[in-house]
Amino acid sequence: MENTVVKERLKRLRAEMEKEGINYYLMPTSDFHNSEYSADFFKVREYFCGFDGSNGTLVVSQDEAGMWTDGRYFIQAENQMSGTGVKLYKMLEENVPTIEEYLLSNMKEGEVLGFDGRVVPTGTGENLESKLKEKKVTLKIDTDLAERVWEDRPPLPCHDIYVLSDELCGRSFADKLSDVRKKMAELGADTYFLSKLDDICWLTNLRGNDVECNPVALCYACITMDSFTLFVQDKEVTDEVKSYCDRVGIRLEGYEDVIPFVQKMTKSGNILIDKRNTNFLTYRELGKKATELGVKLINAKDPTEMMKACKNETELRNIREVYLRDSARLTEFIYWVKTNVGKIPMTEFTAAMKLDSMRALLPGFIELSFPTISAYNANAAMAHYEASAESAAEVKAKGMLLVDSGATYMGGTTDVTRTMVVGEISDEIKRHYTATVCGMLRLANAHFLEGCTGKNVDILAREALWQMGIDYKHGTGHGIGYILNVHEGPQNIRWRFTSGQNEAPLMPGMIVSDEPGVYIEGSHGIRIENILEVVSGDTNEYGHFLHFAHLTYAPIDLEAIDKNYMSDADIKALNDYHKMVYDKVSPLIGDEKISKWLKEATRAI
Amino acid sequence: MENTVVKERLKRLRAEMEKEGINYYLMPTSDFHNSEYSADFFKVREYFCGFDGSNGTLVVSQDEAGMWTDGRYFIQAENQMSGTGVKLYKMLEENVPTIEEYLLSNMKEGEVLGFDGRVVPTGTGENLESKLKEKKVTLKIDTDLAERVWEDRPPLPCHDIYVLSDELCGRSFADKLSDVRKKMAELGADTYFLSKLDDICWLTNLRGNDVECNPVALCYACITMDSFTLFVQDKEVTDEVKSYCDRVGIRLEGYEDVIPFVQKMTKSGNILIDKRNTNFLTYRELGKKATELGVKLINAKDPTEMMKACKNETELRNIREVYLRDSARLTEFIYWVKTNVGKIPMTEFTAAMKLDSMRALLPGFIELSFPTISAYNANAAMAHYEASAESAAEVKAKGMLLVDSGATYMGGTTDVTRTMVVGEISDEIKRHYTATVCGMLRLANAHFLEGCTGKNVDILAREALWQMGIDYKHGTGHGIGYILNVHEGPQNIRWRFTSGQNEAPLMPGMIVSDEPGVYIEGSHGIRIENILEVVSGDTNEYGHFLHFAHLTYAPIDLEAIDKNYMSDADIKALNDYHKMVYDKVSPLIGDEKISKWLKEATRAI
Repeated sequence: MENTVVKERLKRLRAEMEKEGINYYLMPTSDFHNSEYSADFFKVREYFCGFDGSNGTLVVSQDEAGMWTDGRYFIQAENQMSGTGVKLYKMLEENVPTIEEYLLSNMKEGEVLGFDGRVVPTGTGENLESKLKEKKVTLKIDTDLAERVWEDRPPLPCHDIYVLSDELCGRSFADKLSDVRKKMAELGADTYFLSKLDDICWLTNLRGNDVECNPVALCYACITMDSFTLFVQDKEVTDEVKSYCDRVGIRLEGYEDVIPFVQKMTKSGNILIDKRNTNFLTYRELGKKATELGVKLINAKDPTEMMKACKNETELRNIREVYLRDSARLTEFIYWVKTNVGKIPMTEFTAAMKLDSMRALLPGFIELSFPTISAYNANAAMAHYEASAESAAEVKAKGMLLVDSGATYMGGTTDVTRTMVVGEISDEIKRHYTATVCGMLRLANAHFLEGCTGKNVDILAREALWQMGIDYKHGTGHGIGYILNVHEGPQNIRWRFTSGQNEAPLMPGMIVSDEPGVYIEGSHGIRIENILEVVSGDTNEYGHFLHFAHLTYAPIDLEAIDKNYMSDADIKALNDYHKMVYDKVSPLIGDEKISKWLKEATRAI
Repeated sequence: MENTVVKERLKRLRAEMEKEGINYYLMPTSDFHNSEYSADFFKVREYFCGFDGSNGTLVVSQDEAGMWTDGRYFIQAENQMSGTGVKLYKMLEENVPTIEEYLLSNMKEGEVLGFDGRVVPTGTGENLESKLKEKKVTLKIDTDLAERVWEDRPPLPCHDIYVLSDELCGRSFADKLSDVRKKMAELGADTYFLSKLDDICWLTNLRGNDVECNPVALCYACITMDSFTLFVQDKEVTDEVKSYCDRVGIRLEGYEDVIPFVQKMTKSGNILIDKRNTNFLTYRELGKKATELGVKLINAKDPTEMMKACKNETELRNIREVYLRDSARLTEFIYWVKTNVGKIPMTEFTAAMKLDSMRALLPGFIELSFPTISAYNANAAMAHYEASAESAAEVKAKGMLLVDSGATYMGGTTDVTRTMVVGEISDEIKRHYTATVCGMLRLANAHFLEGCTGKNVDILAREALWQMGIDYKHGTGHGIGYILNVHEGPQNIRWRFTSGQNEAPLMPGMIVSDEPGVYIEGSHGIRIENILEVVSGDTNEYGHFLHFAHLTYAPIDLEAIDKNYMSDADIKALNDYHKMVYDKVSPLIGDEKISKWLKEATRAI
């Protein structure tokens, strides 16, 4: 059946392309800051082809439209784009051209490729430009054609910004800014243009609500040695925020005025940016300005990245407390699932709702740090499973329920995964579960020298599984923000890094997840995720030793543990951990029945 | 006291510098191929300053002479250079300029820096050139001034080359060459200039004796799609070699004719070289030729590197057999040390001689693969300890003796370290020894996915020590050649790689050492080194799994093992290993007394 709605939209888009002299128009999946989640305003690709998966790029010419997505979405994309005339290009499949290859073989010499340069990261833009140079293709990146065609387009997200107290943040904006300016001086920069939302929020001690699950505002910042300009939507600025900004010396400009601001700059000195975090349009405009003013555009890692990643003592104190409370609620949830399963109606979705509600009642709750993953049995083997109210599977008294969840509170952002036994499980599952737990604990108990990266320690989490010929196809750990994004860099625990991935050393005060897993298609999925703090140890003639401390204290399901698959060191590690869980969490549990159950659930084996 | 000999030599050097218009003359420590050991011919730096350590660079101007070396040699260098007027520059000490910094601040605009471009790697040469550009310094690299001053200079090493049979090598020269040419074609090269001695030997199935402990000949090779030219000293070519070369199509040219050959090339197509392995003069001449002929100089890793590193089935079969025989002799040596210590006169040196002699009597013995390290008690804590007949310490019935040794046989090159208890040892030593053994075995028992590098697995060897706040300041493992150098790339097991160090994936057929250790200054040194083979395991949906197999089978001293410091998994690993040692080695031991002792020495604990 023809999808006339999409076809009509494409027709109007093509008319606008023609007006602008654009031969090919490209629509990726991003906001202006490469955020993990994009608001509806940014769902241009979905508007013009119907496909709403989390990864996809639509390319439209007068004769053709093609959409590229990855293996997770082939079936969904076929269905959603049926009747639109848009061709599906299956990424990484044999004989399927990449977008670059497609453009290179289809575009004629001298043609124009258009896209909204704000939704394309600089690296991608530069790559397209250099590859298409041989075809003498030029880029037009300053026009958002969707704006002209999409009449009922949702507005930009626009929510009140709020101020975190210096007490809650441990450091004032002025204090952090002075460190940033020191770094600018070291790098020889007089102006620093910062586009990364969580970095700007960290630096200013402001928070917002413009990106799903990320407590950030849409913003840019321009920092000089004697000024700080924050670009935000006027309507987001409350009186409180206004008076805070006045007091600490933050000059406010409109979010939409950022490019005109750059274009009008009359002096800047050398300009610092981090290409990885700057969109292509901003990068280009800054580049033009630098050339015009005869200054250098310095590309370096955002200095805020490391400052933000290494939590200060106040942040750490608050994080530890928040994780304890969060762990206690999770513990109660585990109890609830295990005692109620098979007795009351329960689906993946209602279980998740239960947990979300328990968290929402905690003091200082702001929002979930990501949509809760609740996956029963075989569903847990799917890496990107998301249960909706309608599609959710019934949770029965058989097998396991995997729940990966977390929240942002005034005091920290949490993330934790537990896989709970809800009924009979096979010996194979016990083997997989036990090895996963051993891996999690071995990594958590590592001692290592400063200078080690996630690549050095990853094998500790994976080795028990690798011994069985099993791997999990995801990283072992990611950084986590403070009242900020649940995924942050630069640290990363993984066994291999692709080019462009940052292999940063683990440093004291960093927070990382430790989440090995087993995923057996059609059968079961296991993931056990604790969050760890990197702690400073001894310094001696060999260097500075570091180790981890747990932030997460929630029971690991002993019903799925088989001691026969553990060394005595692994058994000791589990017993030690469980003792800490009981000691730390039981005081936070009101219900005596649950405390009693926890005692048993954390018994030494 | 004035060293008039060195002063007179420097005076004559300065006269030659003046004639050539050279203001500063630099003399590093290398042969023309950056070999691990340099023959006497290359000891120019020693000739002009008296210092004979393994690392040092001498820089001479009309007014000054300075010598740079590292912390191992500060005292020795002071002593040996006393009275010469040569100033010692202590590398990495505070406020000590690097050579570059020294040249940059002392050389005047437009001056000339001279050195023999054959003894400087390309990277070093390019670096000097680019750093000194701001001073408009030019380089003169085609003159070896030592040749004019050093009258009784030892000749270039010149020993007979010999041919290994195709049966012994598993593959013919023609077969290997065809693989190299395939790689050349892939890289778009028509000519390949290879300077690495062991790579040329591996490729041609020839061996030589021009570098200490490395069975290689001084040579270069120039490979085109229809010719193979080998540059060697005429006198090294025996009739056997001549007739082999005629038969397999190796054209022979003089070793000294390599640069004139390059200069006279009239066509070449694109030229492939590996900058890491090419000296600066050769690189420059090839670059000039490429420009002249209008072709590209392609810098890529020597294709031979990976081919040589991944041993073929014949090589592996021979290596396994050679390691067993070598292990049996080492086992007998351990027995000899432990039963004779305190009863007969024994020094580090005589013990080493004993072991060397035992190896020399094995069939197919060619030479030691490196000078045997025999270090008693505190001496073993010194990383670069070398006992001479005069300086060697008495080995008494107290403490431990560390012996790191190996040989090259017709059938393989070995390397192994054992630390033997010869008397009373402290509980601290037992803790260190036990952790070292656990580390060695944990790494040896690793299972990992193809794509893992030495950086991924290194922590398995180190973690038991890191848990105690102890590290060893050397890599965990290096590759080993087949009837070739005891150190070869590209694989390397280390926890960090400096820029320029190759972080290569571990691949099936690679041979690597596994040698953790503990070094406590003034007290004791422990190192346990087994050699491992990388073995292919299952391939499944997660990838291709690899693991290691031991090549070394020699007892680990149970007198230094304390089970209290081991997990049951570690104990099992040690017992399993010891069972294999007994099963494999006892049939190769003639003396029943020793077999009986070995049974006991490899008992399960």
